[in-house]
Amino acid sequence: MNIGILGGGQLARMMAQAGRSLGLNFMFLCPDIYACAAPFGEHLCVPYGDEDAQKRLANWADITTYEFENVPLSVVDSVQKKVSLYPSSSVLSVARDRLKEKTLFRNLGIPTANFSPVDSLEDLRNAMKNIGFSAILKTRTDGYDGKGQALLHGKNDLPSAWMKVGKAPCIVESMVAFNRELSIIAVRDQRGKMVFYPLSENHHRDGILRLSISRQDDPMQARAEAKIRYIMEDLNYVGTMALELFQVKDQLFANEFAPRVHNSGHWTIEAAQTSQFENHLRAICGFPLGKTTSVQSAAMVNLIGLLPSERQILNITDATPHFYCKAERPGRKVGHVTLTSKDYTSEDFQQRLSTLLQLAGQPELAELNFLNAATQTSHN
Amino acid sequence: MNIGILGGGQLARMMAQAGRSLGLNFMFLCPDIYACAAPFGEHLCVPYGDEDAQKRLANWADITTYEFENVPLSVVDSVQKKVSLYPSSSVLSVARDRLKEKTLFRNLGIPTANFSPVDSLEDLRNAMKNIGFSAILKTRTDGYDGKGQALLHGKNDLPSAWMKVGKAPCIVESMVAFNRELSIIAVRDQRGKMVFYPLSENHHRDGILRLSISRQDDPMQARAEAKIRYIMEDLNYVGTMALELFQVKDQLFANEFAPRVHNSGHWTIEAAQTSQFENHLRAICGFPLGKTTSVQSAAMVNLIGLLPSERQILNITDATPHFYCKAERPGRKVGHVTLTSKDYTSEDFQQRLSTLLQLAGQPELAELNFLNAATQTSHN
Repeated sequence: MNIGILGGGQLARMMAQAGRSLGLNFMFLCPDIYACAAPFGEHLCVPYGDEDAQKRLANWADITTYEFENVPLSVVDSVQKKVSLYPSSSVLSVARDRLKEKTLFRNLGIPTANFSPVDSLEDLRNAMKNIGFSAILKTRTDGYDGKGQALLHGKNDLPSAWMKVGKAPCIVESMVAFNRELSIIAVRDQRGKMVFYPLSENHHRDGILRLSISRQDDPMQARAEAKIRYIMEDLNYVGTMALELFQVKDQLFANEFAPRVHNSGHWTIEAAQTSQFENHLRAICGFPLGKTTSVQSAAMVNLIGLLPSERQILNITDATPHFYCKAERPGRKVGHVTLTSKDYTSEDFQQRLSTLLQLAGQPELAELNFLNAATQTSHN
Repeated sequence: MNIGILGGGQLARMMAQAGRSLGLNFMFLCPDIYACAAPFGEHLCVPYGDEDAQKRLANWADITTYEFENVPLSVVDSVQKKVSLYPSSSVLSVARDRLKEKTLFRNLGIPTANFSPVDSLEDLRNAMKNIGFSAILKTRTDGYDGKGQALLHGKNDLPSAWMKVGKAPCIVESMVAFNRELSIIAVRDQRGKMVFYPLSENHHRDGILRLSISRQDDPMQARAEAKIRYIMEDLNYVGTMALELFQVKDQLFANEFAPRVHNSGHWTIEAAQTSQFENHLRAICGFPLGKTTSVQSAAMVNLIGLLPSERQILNITDATPHFYCKAERPGRKVGHVTLTSKDYTSEDFQQRLSTLLQLAGQPELAELNFLNAATQTSHN
């Protein structure tokens, strides 16, 4: 079976790595000449808008998907007219627009931060009367990894924030004083069957995910599953989805969802029975979904900007590196490392994780005690 | 780091699949234009003897290895003169010659079948006076998956057997009436550190491996480890090695060793902490070895000649297919499926294995009761 992917970064790469063993073939439409998925299939290296390339992809592929939500919606629409595409372009139109997304959460009765649309500096000033400081101004579309965002601590910040986001259509949200950041990853097949991975507990710095810990038997699991279930059913979703959540005391606030495999689910490659990548492919191909149970405890540490040597990583017991073969650049995700353990609560695991975090240039995270993380306050 | 591999079949393919995540790059020298490893690196598609290609491989690679023992020894010798190569060509010269191999076992005090060299029909007739029927005549080199072998049940078989093996230099061996066929897979690094996988229990038909079951806590584990340890130390071996053994009551006879990753170790991809492929690369690159412990019970079923559909396989719970993307041809290994379970003794696991074996066209194996395998007689 032939799978066409819009985008050619590490998510497409890991999807193709999972899919090759299933006998699937891959083609990537991605304008980046260094697309790191390229070695795992055919790479159409042209702008997304190139109609000949879209046709070629659609003619070749049995099923298409996308690896990130900033692919132009018009391109996804156009490909979907020619060949099966999951998740559908109507899903993408919600996921890529923070206003539509938050409105969906609200309509489904899922708690969110207070929010308001902002199309001008005046809108922003008015909105802040209800929202209250501190707040975050975010572009409705095209933001990721903390890009397209500005913090608002007081009235004086408003003009510069409005400049910083490029005067683009925005949403302003109140800051949530959360205890934990979590994400739930789930997969829904073409007949509506759903499977859910154990929660990931996430630690960001500067808007970029640094560390995810898989939380088996987390007390918030059932509540998180209920929320992503509503969303997937409402959207008639097919594929892997990630829902980012803030835990405030024992309540969960939805932050955003990603209509794709997600960085906080990379640990599933080593530690779940079926990875999020394989299950996304199973879902979009119409194959039965694989089990999502953890076979081990796991933590995933992103490698941002710089790669330690393989040797340094492999010196850590039960550490599995994933190098994406991307050029090193400040703030760029160039790889990740998964650390597994039979016993997540062991001192040994905590020590290895601490070593790994120091190696990954995250010494301040290394000092946290993750065993108590459920009661600890972290900051975005 | 750049890894050059002589050969480009499924073993090279799975090695490269494991190595890409470690940030390793691959080049394959393989005369088969359909080399199934090709998508995972650069493919030099010329005869092994092509000196320009050997030079190109040696100049590009930091480390070289081979994926099967029928690569011409002269080629391995020549590459080894130019660039680091593991396991060394002196290892290969033993592994590819059944007479040298059996002699090594004998010199190390490891029990084997009775054997004798055969270079003529007269040799064969003389040898049979000591060996006794039934016996097997095997070419000293270039045999695999039952090729280059002839069974000898009585005197009348000798002339036709000698014809069948092409009058090539041979070894004749007595048939061993074994209770089980086992293999032990081990890895030795450049400083002599060794790690051992749990035993595989193997089931052949027509000289081709059909089924391997990983045997945690097998009573023969320690004895098998001692034998492969002697061999690896004697050869100053670096990399993954497989030693095939016959169990006769509580004694182990060495049959042959493979200086490479091995079909009976494919289950390590899903069910061991570190796969045999990754550990081979770690060893030859000088990285620390990964742990060999099982994280689950597993069985591996080869797909011979024909591929069932992905859907049929994925309908079986916890079955992971590996399609090699090779053309289907009678007797050819075109893929394998690993089945995992927390509880190897569960009826559920036995039932899923039975379904898988039927799907793989091995209904007669499906009828065996593997829980009692340790006491059961099987036939090569």
